[in-house]
Parts: sequence; structure tokens; C-alpha cells
Amino acid sequence: MRMALAQARLAASQGEVPIGAVVVYNGQVVSAAHNQRETWKDPTAHAEIIAISEASRRLGGWRLTECDLYVTLEPCPMCAGAIMLSRIQHLVYGASDAKGGAVESKTELLKSGLWNHQPKITAGILADECGMILKDFFRAIRALETTRRDV
Amino acid sequence: MRMALAQARLAASQGEVPIGAVVVYNGQVVSAAHNQRETWKDPTAHAEIIAISEASRRLGGWRLTECDLYVTLEPCPMCAGAIMLSRIQHLVYGASDAKGGAVESKTELLKSGLWNHQPKITAGILADECGMILKDFFRAIRALETTRRDV
Repeated sequence: MRMALAQARLAASQGEVPIGAVVVYNGQVVSAAHNQRETWKDPTAHAEIIAISEASRRLGGWRLTECDLYVTLEPCPMCAGAIMLSRIQHLVYGASDAKGGAVESKTELLKSGLWNHQPKITAGILADECGMILKDFFRAIRALETTRRDV
Repeated sequence: MRMALAQARLAASQGEVPIGAVVVYNGQVVSAAHNQRETWKDPTAHAEIIAISEASRRLGGWRLTECDLYVTLEPCPMCAGAIMLSRIQHLVYGASDAKGGAVESKTELLKSGLWNHQPKITAGILADECGMILKDFFRAIRALETTRRDV
């Protein structure tokens, strides 16, 4: 999760919403990514999607059945869907996302029993730190907008 | 939808599950894609995700607020999530997906009122044709497997 947080910080430094993700296979990191929505001009460029795509290509197959995904924020519906499709065995996330989380907050997509894969889930790892980096980012944006309005 | 079906046929010819998608902006096609999961070795390479990514990059921004998405099969949770994130204004799909559909079949992700964007939805367009191409594809795969077992 420390590596995912480092990815989130990298995102913030590029003006991207600071969320980071890492895929681990047999104790080895196979991909690390951060949100790239603004840079790539792509609504699907969330950290989890990029990390899952890269891990699959590196491991040579789309089934990540022995992989764990670490992500700083609770996944949204798109990313929760990608976690199911990729057969990630263990999802570990940091902060909960009251506005958009699809694991526990707004819906429980991964726990519903409706789909053919449900990963093990561990929530709340370094949650304060993972949440704080997002709060700081949006606070800075609001401050910048206020300054612009006042000029 | 005829163009999405042509994409689905292209997928089948490459050994990919035959699902096609097209994004339309102001009456103009801005992207057309098909499932590439096996070729790209990427579980996120669904037709909708590829079409949305390409349309966003072509149009120069991640908000597809004035775009319509045509897809041959009811979207899965990942793709339904991507449709919400990209602000697609109108989703048009062909066949329903009893096993994995996240619009009407297994869950109603886009109609739940939980998220900040709900597109207009039109279902069942060329549904028989869109469903038949999938049935034919899986029937051919099963026949091939039977032949292999018998050899």
C-alpha cells in the first residue's frame, strides 16, 4: 500500500486525482499505476484499470487468479467490475469512498453473490493516509479556484 | 447497430467473443471497436471500454456528454461503470445478457439512482441478430472442443 500511495502522490504532482494501485503476483510487484484521466483524456484511465491491464500483459494472460490488487481508494463500479473480470484473488484498499465506492459504500458489487468471481477483500489499510492525500488535493484545487475568482 | 454488429463479426473472425461497440457524436461515428480480451491478453479490453477510450481521445476530453454508445450486448458491471464515468448520454444495446448484464439482467446499475449520471437507455435493437452471433460463436467452440476430445 505504501507503493500505491507513492503512485497516488505522483498523480497529484501531475494534477490528477491522487489514487494509486499496485498488482502483486507471488510477492512481486507486476504493475503500479495511478489515475491518468486528465492526461490521457480517458474516463476509463483509473489506477486499477491501468494496473490490471499492465499486469495481464506482463503475465501473458487475462486471468489474474493469483494476484492481489492494492489500491488507495475503494473501487468504483467500473473498477470493481474489472476486478471481477480479471479474477483478482485479493483486493486490498485504503480509504472508503462514500460518494462512489462500489465495494461497501454505495453498493456491494463484489459481495452480492451475483457474479462468478468474488475476491477476498481487506479494507481500511492506511486509510487515513490514503484519504488525506485526496482531501489535500481537493482542498488545494478549491483554494486555487478561490484565488482565481478573487483576482 | 449494424456497424457494431460488423465489429462483432470481426471479433469472431479473430477468435474473440463477438461483441461490438460504436460511439456516435452529432451523427458521426467517432470510434468503433470489438472485444480484444484474448488478443491483447487484457480482461478490461471489452468493446465498450475500447470504444469509449478511443472516442474520448479523439474528441479531446473524457466527458462524452453528447455521445451515444451502441453495443451489441447488454454491458457488464465494468462497462456500465465506464458509461457512467464517461457521461454517455444514450446507451443503445442489442441482446440482453442474462449471465452478466448490469443494466437490466443481473443488476440495474444504470437505473439505481445511486450515481451522478444515468444515461437514457434503449434496449433490444437488433437483439436477435446480436444474440445469434454469440450463440453461433459458442456453438462452434463447443463443436471444436467435442471434435478435439473425439480425436
